Amino acid sequence: MALIVEKYGGTSVADVDRINAVADKVSSAKRAGDDLVVVVSAMSGETNRLLTLADQIHPQAAAREVDVLLSTGEQVTIALLAMALNARGCSARSYTGGQVRIRTDAVHGRARIVDIDAARVRRDLDKGRVVVVAGFQGVDDDGNITTLGRGGSDTTAVAMAAALKASECRIYSDVEGVFTADPRIVPEARRLDRITVEEMLELASLGAKVLQTRSVEFAGKFRVPLRVLSSFKEGPGTLISYEEELMEQPLISGIAFNRDEAKLTICGVPDEPGIAYRILGPISDAHINVDMIIQNVSADNLTDVTFTVHRDDYVQSEKILRDVAAEVGARGVVGADNIAKISVVGVGMRSHAGIATTMFKTLSADSINIQLISTSEIKISVVIEDKYLELAVRALHSAFGLQIAETKKSSESLTAREPDAVDGGNKA
Amino acid sequence: MALIVEKYGGTSVADVDRINAVADKVSSAKRAGDDLVVVVSAMSGETNRLLTLADQIHPQAAAREVDVLLSTGEQVTIALLAMALNARGCSARSYTGGQVRIRTDAVHGRARIVDIDAARVRRDLDKGRVVVVAGFQGVDDDGNITTLGRGGSDTTAVAMAAALKASECRIYSDVEGVFTADPRIVPEARRLDRITVEEMLELASLGAKVLQTRSVEFAGKFRVPLRVLSSFKEGPGTLISYEEELMEQPLISGIAFNRDEAKLTICGVPDEPGIAYRILGPISDAHINVDMIIQNVSADNLTDVTFTVHRDDYVQSEKILRDVAAEVGARGVVGADNIAKISVVGVGMRSHAGIATTMFKTLSADSINIQLISTSEIKISVVIEDKYLELAVRALHSAFGLQIAETKKSSESLTAREPDAVDGGNKA
Repeated sequence: MALIVEKYGGTSVADVDRINAVADKVSSAKRAGDDLVVVVSAMSGETNRLLTLADQIHPQAAAREVDVLLSTGEQVTIALLAMALNARGCSARSYTGGQVRIRTDAVHGRARIVDIDAARVRRDLDKGRVVVVAGFQGVDDDGNITTLGRGGSDTTAVAMAAALKASECRIYSDVEGVFTADPRIVPEARRLDRITVEEMLELASLGAKVLQTRSVEFAGKFRVPLRVLSSFKEGPGTLISYEEELMEQPLISGIAFNRDEAKLTICGVPDEPGIAYRILGPISDAHINVDMIIQNVSADNLTDVTFTVHRDDYVQSEKILRDVAAEVGARGVVGADNIAKISVVGVGMRSHAGIATTMFKTLSADSINIQLISTSEIKISVVIEDKYLELAVRALHSAFGLQIAETKKSSESLTAREPDAVDGGNKA
Repeated sequence: MALIVEKYGGTSVADVDRINAVADKVSSAKRAGDDLVVVVSAMSGETNRLLTLADQIHPQAAAREVDVLLSTGEQVTIALLAMALNARGCSARSYTGGQVRIRTDAVHGRARIVDIDAARVRRDLDKGRVVVVAGFQGVDDDGNITTLGRGGSDTTAVAMAAALKASECRIYSDVEGVFTADPRIVPEARRLDRITVEEMLELASLGAKVLQTRSVEFAGKFRVPLRVLSSFKEGPGTLISYEEELMEQPLISGIAFNRDEAKLTICGVPDEPGIAYRILGPISDAHINVDMIIQNVSADNLTDVTFTVHRDDYVQSEKILRDVAAEVGARGVVGADNIAKISVVGVGMRSHAGIATTMFKTLSADSINIQLISTSEIKISVVIEDKYLELAVRALHSAFGLQIAETKKSSESLTAREPDAVDGGNKA
C-alpha cells in the first residue's frame, strides 16, 4: 500500500464535470489500495475573477488582503472535491493550507514554505480517508493567510509528499508529460519516460510550462519522486528522477524555447568595476526581471552589455537604459523584441564535448544567425530572430536524434503514446 | 472614543460599488474618532452560487464540506472591504472566523459560538486599525471550519460586541429599523426609536425579518446595545434596549405577520397521556418544524389537536398525520394552507388587560373569523384566512394607535423618517 500525493491543476478541476472526473480517478486509486493526499488548485478562471474584483476596489491592494481573497479559490475546490469523493463512497476530508498546517514565511503573494505539520493529515490517512488539500496557500507564524504565488500548488504537492515521505508525487495537468520538444512545433517529439531533476529545472525555467521551477527545486532538495502526467488521458507520464539512478545518460533530453523575451544592448560602456550594477540596478529597481546577461571581453576599455527581459517590459527597460547610458557615458542603446531563445538541455553534455558544435552547425546549415549564446553545465541557449523559431527547433530535434529513444527499453515502446497538442490543433 | 461593532449584510456588500459605499461610511466613522470592528456577510447571491455548485456535486453533501465551501463567501468580502478601506487611507485588516478566533461547537451548518478570543482583534484596534471580520463562521476545537446558519453574521456581530464590550452593535441592512408594522402593508407604520429585547425576540421569530432571533437572544444575554439601521439611508434606526431602562412602556410595540404557514388538525383523538407525542413525534422525525400547537379541553374523552407548519411542508405533514390518525384511532385529519398568522407584540401587555379584547373586537368589526389563538406573556397571535391579512394588519395598527408615538419625545418627531418599502413599490 503506497502513499501517493496527487495534484490537479485549474483546468483539471475547471467545472463540476471535471471535478467529478478527478473524483472518479482518485476513488479508483483508493479502492486499488493506495493512500491518497490530493492537492488542488482553484477552478480555472476563478483566480482571475477574484483578481478583477480586487483590481476594481484597489489597483495596489495590500498583499495580505489579496492573499485572503485568492485563497478562497482553492478552498472552494477542496470542498467540492471532498463532496464528490464522499458521493462515491470514498471517505474524504478537505483542508486549507492553514488547517494542515503549511507554515510559510510572511512574504504575501510569494511566500515560501517553512515546514508542514502533517500530523492531522496522517491521522485522517490512518482512518482510511482521502485528504484533500488546498494548494498555493499557507499560514505565517501570526496566523495570516499567505499564498505561494502562481503555480504554487505544485510546490504544495511536493512539500506534502516530502513531509509525508510519500512514495510518489503526481502532478496532473493538461500535458501528458515532458517531451523532447513542444509537440505543437515538432510533431515527432517524444514523451520522455524519465528526466533528471537538473534537466527538469532547466526546462521549467526555460519555458516548458509543465512544472513550476520552485516545485522542482523542492523535489530535488527532498528527493521526492515526481511524476508529470495528464488528467485527461491515461498514460505513465514522465518521472523526474535523481541522476545516479539512471544507468546510462542521454546526451540531450529536450529542446526548450521561449519567445516572450526582448534583448537590449548598452554599447560602448567604460569597463570599470561596478558598471554591471550601475546598468542593471535601475532595471531591477523597476521590478523588471532580467533573464540572460552577456558581457564580452572589452576592447579599448569599452564593453557592450546585453541582457534579455520579458517582451512586456521592453519599452520601459529601453527608456531606463537610455537614462543609464547618458549617466555612465555609454555610446548608445540598441534592442529588439523580435527574438526567440532556444535551449538544448541534457545532463549528458557534462561529459561530452561537441554538443555546442552540433547546435551551431545545425543552425548555420539553415542560415539561421545566432545573436547571443549563453551556457550552463547542462544547457546551451541561443537567441535567434523569432521567425526562425519553428525551423530551428525542428532542425535541432532531428540533429540530436530526439525522435528515437536513446536507450532501448522494452517498456518504453509499449507505453509510449502519441502526444496531443494542448489546443488539439496539431495532432502528432 | 467609542468602540462600535458594525455589521453589513449581503445586499449592503452586493457589489464593488456597495462595498465602496460601506468603506466610505466606515472610514468617516473612523476619522470621527470611533474604534471600529466591521462584520460582513457574503456578497448577495454568492452563498446561493456556492450552494448550487455543491448541489450539482452531491445533493446531500457532508455538512463539514458545505461549511468549508460557504465560508469562502464572507472571506471574499472581508478581503475586498479591507482593500477598500486601505484605499481610503484607513488602515484595516481582515480576519476569518477561524483567525479571530471565534470558537464554536462542532455542529456544522448551525454551529453555536462557545467563546471568542478577541486578543488579536484588540491588538489591531490598539494600533488604530479597523478590523474586518467574516460573519457567519467560526472554528471548532479541532480546527474545522463551521458556519452558524443563515443570518449568522448578525450573531457574529453581537458576539464580537459582547467579547469586546463594545459601546454599541449596529446591524446595517436594507431596512431603516423596526416598524410598528410592515410599511408595505401599512403605509402609516412608524419606525420605533426603541424596542425591548423581549419584543424584538417575538417580532424576529414572528416573521419581521429584521434580525436573526439567535442574535437577539445573544444580545439579551450579554446586554449588548443593539441598533438596527439602514446602510442605504441615513437615520438613527431602532435601538434594542433592556426593559428597566425605559421609563414608560407602550402597550403594543408592533404587529408582525407570517403567511408562510399551513394548519393541520387531527380530530377526535382519544385524550390520553402521551398522545401529543404520538402525533407530533413522526412530524419532527421527518425534520418538519412545528410552530403553533393548540389542544383544547376534551369532550367525551376525545380531543382535537391543531398545529401549524411551514407551507412547504403541508403536503408531507398531512400524509404523515393520516397514518398517525389511523394508528391512534382518530376520527380524521383536516387542514388548510390558505392561512395567515398575525401577532400583536408588546411588553406593556403584561400589566394591562384588554389587549386581547381590543384585538378580537377589531377583527370582528371587519367580519374576520379567527381560526386559532395562541398567547405568550408579551404577544397574542391569531390565525385567519390569508386573504384578510392586509385588512387585519391595517385595522389592528389603527386600533392600537400605532401611527402615533405613544410617549411624547421631542427628539422623535425630529428624527422620525418616512419609511421606504424595500422594493420601492409602496412609498409611504
